[in-house]
Amino acid sequence: MEYYSKQISNLISELSTLPGIGAKSAQRLAFHLLNMPEADVEKLSTSMIEARRNIHYCKNCFTLTDQEICPICSDAKRNKKLIMVVEDTRDLAAYEKTGKFDGVYHVLHGAISPMNGIGPADIKLKELMVRLQGDVDEVIIATNSSMEGETTAMYISKLIKPTGIKVTRIASGVPVGGDLEYIDEVTLLRALEGRTEL
Amino acid sequence: MEYYSKQISNLISELSTLPGIGAKSAQRLAFHLLNMPEADVEKLSTSMIEARRNIHYCKNCFTLTDQEICPICSDAKRNKKLIMVVEDTRDLAAYEKTGKFDGVYHVLHGAISPMNGIGPADIKLKELMVRLQGDVDEVIIATNSSMEGETTAMYISKLIKPTGIKVTRIASGVPVGGDLEYIDEVTLLRALEGRTEL
Repeated sequence: MEYYSKQISNLISELSTLPGIGAKSAQRLAFHLLNMPEADVEKLSTSMIEARRNIHYCKNCFTLTDQEICPICSDAKRNKKLIMVVEDTRDLAAYEKTGKFDGVYHVLHGAISPMNGIGPADIKLKELMVRLQGDVDEVIIATNSSMEGETTAMYISKLIKPTGIKVTRIASGVPVGGDLEYIDEVTLLRALEGRTEL
Repeated sequence: MEYYSKQISNLISELSTLPGIGAKSAQRLAFHLLNMPEADVEKLSTSMIEARRNIHYCKNCFTLTDQEICPICSDAKRNKKLIMVVEDTRDLAAYEKTGKFDGVYHVLHGAISPMNGIGPADIKLKELMVRLQGDVDEVIIATNSSMEGETTAMYISKLIKPTGIKVTRIASGVPVGGDLEYIDEVTLLRALEGRTEL
């Protein structure tokens, strides 16, 4: 990229390493940054560094937080005996947006994926088992409905079963508002298997 | 976004002010940054600040550069008598990628747009006229083929005509590889008007 000054090229190439940012978007972002007031660029830059520096895993549920224990785990109104296991913090946020789940979470930070060399020891599974030594009524497995998510769900359920704690899996089926015509066969079969009496 | 720690929410909302970054992408970017090594976040952040601080307009052509005169203007091999007028630095880069233009540029930093309150005084037009007092053979107007770009092209050509300097406009027509069936009527008519003898 000789037609740009070195610092612009550097910025573009660094921005293009971010997820979802291709060469064109990186270029657009870079020029946007160069046209922003200097103070705003400094503010964004500080937010990035500060967040990266101060954010760590909640000691309890392993979600990302800037406190020792995250707001959800420290909320007295949440039911600590009901643990929803999710793959990452964004999945937790998705359920929080529903506003209907009053239990707590356990963030695995990944899913078992032999294809990608990710085994049970690479996700926060041992930490979940430690938590289950406390007083827990039910573990809801809300890993994704992907191959990796399903594998992880199976693995966790087998691990928990012997402890006698109830283990459940979120339902998989036709999304609300979904048109059957456009739903894949696997989902349709899953919806059929999971049918409930009216 | 109460389900995220304050610093994460801040970072997400700042990232989502960037162009082309919606709420979902901002979230993805934020979590990517939080999972990056701290040193890498600092590097990116420094590139942003440094670039913003050191980049200014080339004294000659007004492209963004970290030197006083940009590499193109200081290149002895470029023809200084041939000036291509573009709306912004990215348009300059687009023509540089072709590797076939050996003249120099003039970056307007915008286009005349009465609808958006942008008049001739808001773009680097006065600066272009100053440059034309030197020894110039031809001015190629390569503003976009949009309403604003065309208005700007007309305005500039009227301004330059009295000086006797040759003014040209890049051709507009069917893009190479374009299928006529999918081209809009205005472009088709433009291509017809601009037909050349074979």
